[in-house]
Parts: sequence; structure tokens; C-alpha cells
Amino acid sequence: MSPETDTDTETEAAFTATVSKDELSELLEPVQVLVDECKIRLTDDGLNIRAVDPANVGMVDAELPKEALEQYEAKSDVIGVNLERLDDIISMADNGALIDFTLDPRTRKLEVVVDGLEYTMALIDPDSIRQEPDLPDLDLAAEVVLTGKELDRGITAADMVSDHGALAVDPDTAEFEISAEGDTDDAYYTLGEDKLINISPGPAHSLFSLDYLKDVKKPIPKDAEVTLEVGDEFPVKAHYDSPDTAVRITFMVAPRIQSD
Amino acid sequence: MSPETDTDTETEAAFTATVSKDELSELLEPVQVLVDECKIRLTDDGLNIRAVDPANVGMVDAELPKEALEQYEAKSDVIGVNLERLDDIISMADNGALIDFTLDPRTRKLEVVVDGLEYTMALIDPDSIRQEPDLPDLDLAAEVVLTGKELDRGITAADMVSDHGALAVDPDTAEFEISAEGDTDDAYYTLGEDKLINISPGPAHSLFSLDYLKDVKKPIPKDAEVTLEVGDEFPVKAHYDSPDTAVRITFMVAPRIQSD
Amino acid sequence: MSPETDTDTETEAAFTATVSKDELSELLEPVQVLVDECKIRLTDDGLNIRAVDPANVGMVDAELPKEALEQYEAKSDVIGVNLERLDDIISMADNGALIDFTLDPRTRKLEVVVDGLEYTMALIDPDSIRQEPDLPDLDLAAEVVLTGKELDRGITAADMVSDHGALAVDPDTAEFEISAEGDTDDAYYTLGEDKLINISPGPAHSLFSLDYLKDVKKPIPKDAEVTLEVGDEFPVKAHYDSPDTAVRITFMVAPRIQSD
Repeated sequence: MSPETDTDTETEAAFTATVSKDELSELLEPVQVLVDECKIRLTDDGLNIRAVDPANVGMVDAELPKEALEQYEAKSDVIGVNLERLDDIISMADNGALIDFTLDPRTRKLEVVVDGLEYTMALIDPDSIRQEPDLPDLDLAAEVVLTGKELDRGITAADMVSDHGALAVDPDTAEFEISAEGDTDDAYYTLGEDKLINISPGPAHSLFSLDYLKDVKKPIPKDAEVTLEVGDEFPVKAHYDSPDTAVRITFMVAPRIQSD
Repeated sequence: MSPETDTDTETEAAFTATVSKDELSELLEPVQVLVDECKIRLTDDGLNIRAVDPANVGMVDAELPKEALEQYEAKSDVIGVNLERLDDIISMADNGALIDFTLDPRTRKLEVVVDGLEYTMALIDPDSIRQEPDLPDLDLAAEVVLTGKELDRGITAADMVSDHGALAVDPDTAEFEISAEGDTDDAYYTLGEDKLINISPGPAHSLFSLDYLKDVKKPIPKDAEVTLEVGDEFPVKAHYDSPDTAVRITFMVAPRIQSD
Repeated sequence: MSPETDTDTETEAAFTATVSKDELSELLEPVQVLVDECKIRLTDDGLNIRAVDPANVGMVDAELPKEALEQYEAKSDVIGVNLERLDDIISMADNGALIDFTLDPRTRKLEVVVDGLEYTMALIDPDSIRQEPDLPDLDLAAEVVLTGKELDRGITAADMVSDHGALAVDPDTAEFEISAEGDTDDAYYTLGEDKLINISPGPAHSLFSLDYLKDVKKPIPKDAEVTLEVGDEFPVKAHYDSPDTAVRITFMVAPRIQSD
């Protein structure tokens, strides 16, 4: 259990990076809405996290390419982290501050340096963390591009009347609709081509748990351009590139079975 | 129970209105501090709500004249609404946004449209809502006009020492006083003619539950000119016209029996 | 028990003062983090409060010299106050407002006047309040001067990993360090001469409960220059003069016994 017992061969696993507070927050927040612990892959291309919530309904793929980082050096490695703990440390940094990470190959602890504060964080054995999901490549019927703000409005409204809501595209009118029908009230948020950034219409209507849609929309910046791929009783895929950093996020939420 | 069973004669009951978010908030908030559900009268003159809290201590009369509205068309009708639900919908509107209401005469549901969001709200059978009170026309001994801010200060101070406080006018000094005498501490907030907007003195001293006075003062804008009518062991009447909208509010609070 | 039974000789105990809201807040807040009730000494020199928390770990000495006050007149006297109650009254004042205090020698009640509000506060029998501590004059090995902000950062970081932390000075490097070693993680906040306002190095390393250090740092203004006196397994003394008022605060926190 003790990291001190690690063997010499692990001295290969060195990793150092300098990341801004903003980049790190935008990378980790979308993961934190689904899980408490995750694996971070330290690859030749940069940082990559994939995670799925315990109910297997919501998945996320979060990437921060190394080109965006002040400094980055990694041999292919995987570390397991407690996200709340990492969040606490990040909160010690001023906005815009840089945070230095060094993985000690011997102790397998992560050294984090923020504005004069040195923090040694114990890592979690990656094997004890839920396996990373593969976000399947689905060929979905319709694709819609809208702002984070519009997505937020639609999901918030649907959540007022029910615990599940529909994402649908009408191929005839080329309209995208977020809707929910509750026991007494109904809510419909319809966006035509004038309000959408883009739409590739196709027949699509899928039902989702609003708890998941709410979690997933939370970290999306209001000014992000979100690409939604929707199908007929299929999962929804939501992708956005952060407007402010190089972070790239893809969410996938599994559908609920349609009633009636 | 189902609105679908309504008869054809009800197609007469059409109602449409366009109301700004601010007007609606200022109309409904003073009602919501006393009750969860209310009847809204759709009259030739505009919208009118009267309500009394379950203990029969606090009453409110809230009016929004149709002249102030962007658009208003109503045949005399009464609808029953859940105020929290309506508040949720209003919160979806940006400040200053206009909200469209249409009463569907067949389904007796209220269609609410806010910035592209269409919300269908089930109404409550007005007969199941507590009867509307008549705010009696009392000839009270004294009248005082002061700002919402001064009223707030006095009630907040009185609430620090006791659960009941007095509103009083001294006819000799032409001073208005909000006061409370607690088990250990006392608080007196005295306003002379220099601090009041107006005063028509007369002998007045009545005791009230501070819980009610606190509820009633909450929605009053700090810059509103509030007219208080007070008497000797009589109810207090508080009236103000909103400084920013055409909303007119009258509260009445029944007195507690004086001790000693 | 009743203040009405006080004898005539107490008419000598008069006290009046006019204090700004800011001065009063800065005087009382550091006391309130340790105790709920305290004695205030009304002396020839001004107001003085000394208090120790129920566990005898944290002590405070808070002073407001009379020269700083708009008006001050006191015969040597001691009053006992409930700090939360006094805080409620202060919160009624606008920022920068002046608050008038008068001690009624007959009733032994404190009259507080804030912007037209008259508040009569019952005092607490000073004999029923925990005895005032003497903050011992220790000759500690090292003295460090740093901003409230740096102290806040170090204590916040240490609190993330453990419930106790160390304050230490390295006489060789002339560095001051706030650190904590937890079950899994460690945090070190090291400040060299470049980051400190001043340092008189000496061998010092003492362990403290972070709950107390957190309480004590809370009221310290971020821009205050805080002088810390630290020793080897000795109490820590923290002193600062408020940057904005004439208030002078000294805290002392007893050490925990070192482990290992």
C-alpha cells in the first residue's frame, strides 16, 4: 500500500507540467460533475481524462493538449486523483496563476506548487478507480450547434415540470426542441435556424434524465458553442471547445426508455 | 377535475396579456409573503389580487392597472395560481423582458411565453383557494408617510428584542415611533417631522406580531413612499405605489391584544 | 440581580462614548472568534478587552485608545456584554456611521443610539463572565512580520491536510514556514526574506491546533502587518495594529504537544 515500497523501475514515470488555474478548472469541472475520483492519462499529446458515473448514464472525455501548456513533459503514465482534493488546492491559486506539477517517481506522490505553497498529494491506485469508458462513435441523425446559454435555458425550463425531458429535431421545420411534459405543466423550448448557430436536421427524439442533463450543462461556459448530436432513442453527445482555453470536452448521456 | 371537461360556454373566458418581468414580480411578491396560492382577478381595469394569510392576520390587495401593460385583453374572469410555480417561470426571463400570457378557454391552462420558452401551466380551481378578504375602510386616527427604508430599519430593530412591537404616533410631538420592549432589552425608533415625508398626527398606539410586520416589509422597495394608517389598538394599513412600475399594494395587519 | 437595586454610589460609574461602526467592528470581531460574552474595561486610556476561550487555548487583548474616539468619557468601570447582541445593533449602522453609547448609572443598562434608533441593552454581571487572562510576556526566539494575506494563505493550506500545523523559523535560511503533515498529504508554505516584511530569526518550531489558528486569522485585515513571535514548543503571539482604525489586537495561542 505504501508508496515507499515502489520499485526502482518506476523512476521512469516522471511527469512535470505547468498549467494555469483556468485551464485546470475547465478540464476538471466537467469530470467532477460525474465522479469523485478519476484517472488522468499523461500522454505524449497532453492530459486526457475519461470517466463514467456509477450508474453508467453519463460519460465525459476531457482533454488538454500539451501545446497549450507552459511546460509539459510526460512518459506515458496514468495517475489516480481525488478531484475534490485537487479542487481545494487549485482554489488556493489566484485567477490566472500558474500551477506546477511534478510526479515523484519514487514515492508516486504528486508535488503541486502554487504561489509559494508546496503541496504533496497522495495519489490513488488507478486500478481501484472505475474503468474508463469508451465513448462510442455513433452515427446520429441530427447535429445542432447552439450556445451554452441556450442549452442552459432549455434544460432549466424542462427541469421545472418533470424529472425527464426530450431533445428532438424536427427535420421538416429544422427546429431543435428541448421539452418536458409533467403531471400538470409542460415546457417547450424551441430554437429555429435563426437562433441556432448551425443545424443538420434529421429525425431525432430521445428522452433523458434531467438530473444528468443538469449536471452536464453546469460546467459549460455560457458563450461556448456546443455541438449536440441527437438521434431517435439514442444517447446524446455534446461537444465543446472552451472559448477561453485549449480544453476540449465531450459528454455523452444515455437515453431513458420512452414511455408510451 | 380534468380541464378537458369544461363546457363550450367557457370559450368566453379568453385572456391575453403582455407584462414585463419587473411589473409581475412587484405584483406577486407582496402576495407571496402571505400565501402560496391565490386567485388573480382579470378585470376590465387590469389584474387584481386579494389574499389573507391562513391565520387571518395579514391581508394584501395588489393591483396592476391595464394601462401600464403592453397588451391586455380580458373578459371578467378569475384564475387560481400556484405562486411559487409562477415565480419559477418569471425567473427564466431576463430583467426587463416581456412575458406573454394566454388563457386557453378550452383547457383552462395558462400559456406563458418568455424569450422562446413556452410554458403551459395548470391552474388551480379558484373555489379551492381561501376566500378573498375585504380590506375594511377604517377611519384611523393618524397617517404617516415614510420611506420603505425607514420602515425596514424600525421593524428590523424592534425584531432584535421581542416578537411583538408597537407602532405609535404621539399627537403632541407629531412623532412616529416603532418600538419593542423585550425581556432584557428595548428598542425605539422615533421619527419626527424632519425625517417623515408627511404626518397627520392623532392618538395611535397598536401592538403587532413582528413576524407579520417583517413579512409585509420585505417586498417594499427601499425608495417607496409608504403611507401608514395607524389607530389605537386597531389594524395598521400600509399602502405604496411602486416607484418603478404601475403596481399598487395595500397591506393590512391585525393588531395583537395589548398586554397590561 | 435586578439593576434597579443598585445603590447611589454607582451614579459615579457614568460612561459615554461615540465610536464609529468600523472601529467597533474591528475591536469586537477578534474577541468574538473566541468567546460569546466578555468584559469591556472603560479606562482612562480608552476601551480594553481581554478574553480567553473556554479551553484556555486562545487569548486576545483588544484595545481602542480614547484619542481615536469622537468623544469619550469614562470613570474606571467594567461592563459585561453579549457580543452577538452588540453585533446585531452595530449591523443596524451604515458603514462609517457613528454610534453613541451611554451607561445609565442607575439602571446599569447601556443606551446605544445609531441613526435615530435608541437601543437599551441589559448588561451582564461581569462577575459571571470568565476571568480575564494575562497575556504573559514571553521572550520568544524568533519574530516574523508578514501581511494578513500571507498568514491567511498558509493557514488555509495547512488546514487542507490536517487538524494541526506547525509554525517554524529556520535560523540558517531565515525562512518562516507554515506547514502541516496529514495522513496522506502534506502542505508547506515557506516565506523567505523577500516575501516577509521583516524577520529576526531564531530556532522556532511549535505545533498548533488549526481550528484556533483559523479562528484567530479570520478577523485580521488582509493588508495588516502582523508580527508573529514564535518559539520552540511555545505559544505563538500575533500582534497587529488595524491599518484603518486605531484598534490594536494581540492574540496568543497555546501550542499542542509535539508528536514524535
